[in-house]
Amino acid sequence: MKNKGLIRIQNPPTILSSAAVVGKKEHDGPLGADFDLHAEDDRFGMDTWEKAESEMQRLAFGLMLKKCRMREDDVDAIFAGDLLNQCTGSSFGLLDFGIPYFGLYGACSTMAESLMLAALTVGNNIFNRAAAVCSSHFCSAERQFRFPIEYGGQRTPTSQWTVTGSGAMLVANDGGGPYVTEVMPGISVQKGITDANNMGAAMAPAAVDTLTRYFSCSGTVPEDFDVILTGDLGAIGHDITMELLYSSGFNIRSVYNDCGLMIYSAKEQDVHAGGSGCGCSGTVICGPVMKRLRQGIYKNVLFIGTGALMSPGSVQQGMPIAGIAHLVRISSELPGTLVSGEERGGSNG
Amino acid sequence: MKNKGLIRIQNPPTILSSAAVVGKKEHDGPLGADFDLHAEDDRFGMDTWEKAESEMQRLAFGLMLKKCRMREDDVDAIFAGDLLNQCTGSSFGLLDFGIPYFGLYGACSTMAESLMLAALTVGNNIFNRAAAVCSSHFCSAERQFRFPIEYGGQRTPTSQWTVTGSGAMLVANDGGGPYVTEVMPGISVQKGITDANNMGAAMAPAAVDTLTRYFSCSGTVPEDFDVILTGDLGAIGHDITMELLYSSGFNIRSVYNDCGLMIYSAKEQDVHAGGSGCGCSGTVICGPVMKRLRQGIYKNVLFIGTGALMSPGSVQQGMPIAGIAHLVRISSELPGTLVSGEERGGSNG
Repeated sequence: MKNKGLIRIQNPPTILSSAAVVGKKEHDGPLGADFDLHAEDDRFGMDTWEKAESEMQRLAFGLMLKKCRMREDDVDAIFAGDLLNQCTGSSFGLLDFGIPYFGLYGACSTMAESLMLAALTVGNNIFNRAAAVCSSHFCSAERQFRFPIEYGGQRTPTSQWTVTGSGAMLVANDGGGPYVTEVMPGISVQKGITDANNMGAAMAPAAVDTLTRYFSCSGTVPEDFDVILTGDLGAIGHDITMELLYSSGFNIRSVYNDCGLMIYSAKEQDVHAGGSGCGCSGTVICGPVMKRLRQGIYKNVLFIGTGALMSPGSVQQGMPIAGIAHLVRISSELPGTLVSGEERGGSNG
Repeated sequence: MKNKGLIRIQNPPTILSSAAVVGKKEHDGPLGADFDLHAEDDRFGMDTWEKAESEMQRLAFGLMLKKCRMREDDVDAIFAGDLLNQCTGSSFGLLDFGIPYFGLYGACSTMAESLMLAALTVGNNIFNRAAAVCSSHFCSAERQFRFPIEYGGQRTPTSQWTVTGSGAMLVANDGGGPYVTEVMPGISVQKGITDANNMGAAMAPAAVDTLTRYFSCSGTVPEDFDVILTGDLGAIGHDITMELLYSSGFNIRSVYNDCGLMIYSAKEQDVHAGGSGCGCSGTVICGPVMKRLRQGIYKNVLFIGTGALMSPGSVQQGMPIAGIAHLVRISSELPGTLVSGEERGGSNG
């Protein structure tokens, strides 16, 4: 493949609309005002957490359509996924819409994986408009991956708090930006981490692998971006990523942040190492980040969705946890007008 | 979207290579001789069924590469999925290869979903070569979806037998066919089926929806195909599909078969309504069907991968089972040389 996995989209599609639906804790966090909708009880009118998660997807997708005055028939395909067994959050959440449906499993990287596939298919005229959707719910994730909520288990310092939220985006072949200009699919990386309560450490090497490949073949330097955002590495994974990249000659400190660190106030909200889940980067990208792109505060965003490829069963069987990191570059201007590292003659690091 | 979801691939890619790895029961079935590899004990040298499933994917992918004398570096992307919680069959099975990885969840339709995305991305020059991989394992599926094997639970007459097997395909932008010429992504269809032991009934309406859309907008008639193959509807779903299509004016009887009916000898192998699982259509398409396409026995195959979008949890919560059916047309000749219904002036039904 050209450029070791970097794909420059020839006709960069526009992110026409996005919506983010969250729970109470996320609404109470530092980004609360930038989400579209929340429920005070995290139930969204449903009688189970799993149905509440599906309902968030339904609400996010519907709201996203409403914002750009589109109808179901205007959407050619949906790329969607979540963390629930057999991805039922998405299949039930989006069932009502009657749109060709591609189910994905990218663990917590799903917002990036779905956005990447939506952008690739629209940018290559396979579809006119495609949606990217994902979700996670603290309560459905806790009982599936860890303990029933009622058990009240003690959490380790490295553990992260699964975000209750759903993000939805519509990518279209017309519109004036923000554009998805480049994507780079992730390669699974496994470095022997077996602690299911330290996902940040398991995913960080994948983020480092993708970012190293990206800087090496894109001709960009970290300062070309207003922000480089990983999905949900949390405090531990954030620091590992920064340090490993620094030792490879890439200093991202001045522009680097992680959605899992942004969505909660770590000290006041008792989330230990930070937020996680598909809904973490899903809501932060679809809400606050898209808002800042539209406001002109951000012009160039490098989003690296991170996922841990494991299950409770695989951990019980002693299997190590692999990570994956999919990269999406979102720019408010088309590539021709961007100044890249190559053009400036700049070198990496 | 043009043609209600039908996508004609402008530069139809070639299926360059395929491999199918199966368990003992599948090897003992009527198609046994057409699979590449099997293990007598279904364990493939591993100490758990889940690891055995991953090992099947690793073997199938490796064998597929070997057959076309390609190396890992020659493959730009993998699209893969399975039925295990969090799709660990694929993530662990393909971890060694270091190839950009797109995780999918299409339930039992995964062979069609992955092949569709591989064909779309290669056919539109996003990748030069992309792989489609899937698997299922009777023992890992039984304990996850139904009962532990040791329990020896009685099976209902409508139940199906999850295929132990993995299929892998390589789609490339060079080569002389067989070509993937058309695809049609499925739309989720839910008709109120709640019996998790009658997947055929839950999936059949989705197959009917996709096939009806396909015949309506492709200008083809059933007789244009040597075989129309659904993935794993089994005896019940097969008959429902044929009857519902007949009542809509499409008589597919003379060319219709189902991978779940082909892979076992129903009477002698005690599989009740037939085979199921990602590995069902995965191995039948990658093994016997590809063999017949290469031998010239088949020239035109319409493959409709079928999946049931549910989980044990969703069934316990009383949710109905939705189905999805993704369509892929595989032809040994390029479209220009095909005679379609339109050209003949033929009408549907």
